[in-house]
Amino acid sequence: MYSEEVLALFKKQGIEIGDIVSISSSTGKFEGEIMPKTGSGDDNIIVLKLKSGYNAGILYGKDVKVEKIASGKHSSEIFEKELKRNPLLPDVTILWTGGTIGSKVGYRTGGVEAKLKPGELLYYIPELAEIANITLKHIFNIWSDNMTVKEWQKIAVETANSLKEGANGVVITHGTDTMHYTGAALSFMLQNLNAPVVLTGAQRSSDRGSSDAFMNLICAVHLAAKSDIAEVGICMHAKSSDDKCAFLRGTKARKMHSSRRDAFRSINSSPIATVNMKGDIQYIGNYRKRNGKGKSEPELATKFEPKVALIKAYPNSDPEIIDYYVKNKYKGIIIEGTGLGHFPTSGISWLPGVKKAVDKGVIVGMTTQCINGRVNANVYEPARMISRAGVVYCEDMLPETAYIKLGWLLANKPEQAKELLPKDLAGEITPRIEYEENFD
Amino acid sequence: MYSEEVLALFKKQGIEIGDIVSISSSTGKFEGEIMPKTGSGDDNIIVLKLKSGYNAGILYGKDVKVEKIASGKHSSEIFEKELKRNPLLPDVTILWTGGTIGSKVGYRTGGVEAKLKPGELLYYIPELAEIANITLKHIFNIWSDNMTVKEWQKIAVETANSLKEGANGVVITHGTDTMHYTGAALSFMLQNLNAPVVLTGAQRSSDRGSSDAFMNLICAVHLAAKSDIAEVGICMHAKSSDDKCAFLRGTKARKMHSSRRDAFRSINSSPIATVNMKGDIQYIGNYRKRNGKGKSEPELATKFEPKVALIKAYPNSDPEIIDYYVKNKYKGIIIEGTGLGHFPTSGISWLPGVKKAVDKGVIVGMTTQCINGRVNANVYEPARMISRAGVVYCEDMLPETAYIKLGWLLANKPEQAKELLPKDLAGEITPRIEYEENFD
Repeated sequence: MYSEEVLALFKKQGIEIGDIVSISSSTGKFEGEIMPKTGSGDDNIIVLKLKSGYNAGILYGKDVKVEKIASGKHSSEIFEKELKRNPLLPDVTILWTGGTIGSKVGYRTGGVEAKLKPGELLYYIPELAEIANITLKHIFNIWSDNMTVKEWQKIAVETANSLKEGANGVVITHGTDTMHYTGAALSFMLQNLNAPVVLTGAQRSSDRGSSDAFMNLICAVHLAAKSDIAEVGICMHAKSSDDKCAFLRGTKARKMHSSRRDAFRSINSSPIATVNMKGDIQYIGNYRKRNGKGKSEPELATKFEPKVALIKAYPNSDPEIIDYYVKNKYKGIIIEGTGLGHFPTSGISWLPGVKKAVDKGVIVGMTTQCINGRVNANVYEPARMISRAGVVYCEDMLPETAYIKLGWLLANKPEQAKELLPKDLAGEITPRIEYEENFD
Repeated sequence: MYSEEVLALFKKQGIEIGDIVSISSSTGKFEGEIMPKTGSGDDNIIVLKLKSGYNAGILYGKDVKVEKIASGKHSSEIFEKELKRNPLLPDVTILWTGGTIGSKVGYRTGGVEAKLKPGELLYYIPELAEIANITLKHIFNIWSDNMTVKEWQKIAVETANSLKEGANGVVITHGTDTMHYTGAALSFMLQNLNAPVVLTGAQRSSDRGSSDAFMNLICAVHLAAKSDIAEVGICMHAKSSDDKCAFLRGTKARKMHSSRRDAFRSINSSPIATVNMKGDIQYIGNYRKRNGKGKSEPELATKFEPKVALIKAYPNSDPEIIDYYVKNKYKGIIIEGTGLGHFPTSGISWLPGVKKAVDKGVIVGMTTQCINGRVNANVYEPARMISRAGVVYCEDMLPETAYIKLGWLLANKPEQAKELLPKDLAGEITPRIEYEENFD
């Protein structure tokens, strides 16, 4: 981000990112568009996009004069100019849904708002046009915390449409907070997928020196354009450094840090692949492969039962919360239990309420709040009691994924929902033999 | 654990762990008590504790004859025999509360039950008597999932009593599932602590070859006996290997794996120390030091408001859950929000319900379900709105710790509860400067 002195100058002259300015300094006179400060260099260097398309950096100091020529509004013309299709490149559709990746710092509030127009992206990241023919679709622009079933369904439908229209792969820009919930939802909603569907986002907005927006998007487009992975996954920084991104299965990924750029981790399984800015893809884990011959559009199964809850069991917790959901006609409850999958079974016991819920036909699933590891009803007596009460032990499935899966099962396969909950459908359950921690 | 052949032999002859047997083999005739198989050697080696006190291992095979002489019931005499106090050694009190650490495999059910008597431990782990004069107090014997406020209060009182009676440190054996909740509760309930209070447990029962029970307990007693750490913490395996244990601050620890022996991790801060079986203590982080001159008994502040809830916000989640808790006269709610501390603020918004709760005097705190990292109300507009609605952002405090702290504050410092929730009282909040992830 620009230094306080540069920001003060901008403020004084009414200059905003995107405006056309003229800058005179001892090294010459430059005219161009003020770019956001995305590098990690000196924050006093003002970055201009010159008419030639190249960027220039001018160190701000006493001898430097900056003058505003035109407001940035002109940009809409540039952003909307039609791109020529290169028949030698694959086709990738980017579905725009919002989040930090498309936000820029609001100088007035000092915070980050979701308001960058999608078309600006190609202008700021010309590299994308060298990887694939990009089609941009602005679906909506919301913080991912506000996603609901409706938005998941919309994204699934638009993804299927894009593949039907011939895209080799689809990239979905998305707020990071709930990206893994959407990853799980799409993994179930897009059946018989035959192309990569890559969610990506940013932990730092594109105006910040440390932004991961550019690299994440470039890596995501590489994956969508040329990987043979026919799965839904998340492409984000693999480490806090800019070496490479990881591609994590949509049903196995979880945001594990509130601010780090490598916040997303694959839980109880390895990432599917890593990819760098040059497009080198290293395949790591097992994955569903793209079938070159098959049709590329998936079957849509977007129905979803919204009356499913995800709740946490903890010491001294209120068992009546189960009754609350039963009374409110919930059809499924996923419990984040303790350890191998427990809740209080004596004292302030959850057993009577859970038994009643199961008797009324509510499907109750057990996962672990440890996040890592597998639940197991066969080690301790309390878990045996919980299992006998009809609670379904969900193996090594993430609580968030189990919540999504149960909502999907109840709407799409209601008769088999209980039976299928602990069976692997979309990579959400790792077979014990494939990736088991050393238990003994 | 013993091999299937050995177990079959035991079953056939009605032999259980603790029984007195006679074994004849080509190497001689041995008489002694059948010990649980705790080593990692050949599972066909039967371990006997001889009358001399030494253990002998006899490889089971065709030429080996095993005969039962007496049932293990005699043991109660041995277990209850009084130990002589060694004035050169420190005094450590072990408070027994149950959990896997004191369980042995129930051969009938095949599972693990909590039924080992505490006195047996000193008999099975004579090393303890070389570290300290051990006083054993059997408080109760429950699965940690069934812990409630009452049990936390009982443990706090017994810890204070033990220190008053002259113990240099206190060890508390505890089920692992909710050990970190108890660690947080004791951290607030024991004020002005001037001695180490060490929670320990086991991920595998003491009858299993891979049991961590012995090492964890020995390391915990070392810490209680001679460390100068005047804090409540958790002593468990630092790695899956048997190199050393880590001592994690009670307010910063979290069970992060359902089955691994190194399940406990210090979140957003380093462990306080590591310790090995020999008693070598390596101090790592900052900690509150034992004051040699001061009194050693803590002040008790065991009051606790049970009407506090810990809930998770997620896409499509039901905001009416807030109303449910308000109607049920809850005084505090900790939210596990997404990312930097968010919940839905448009669409199916939580804002109206949360505003109403705050207006009615309910204290609502925000933590992150990412587990790692800090919440921050100043980056994104939704968090600003949530913060303006009166939600308290709890820095880098764990959701579980925030739940315990709010229950404690509401009962002990109701007037200052809201103000103190985001302030560090017992190491639960790491100052930004001390342990900040590279945010930029």
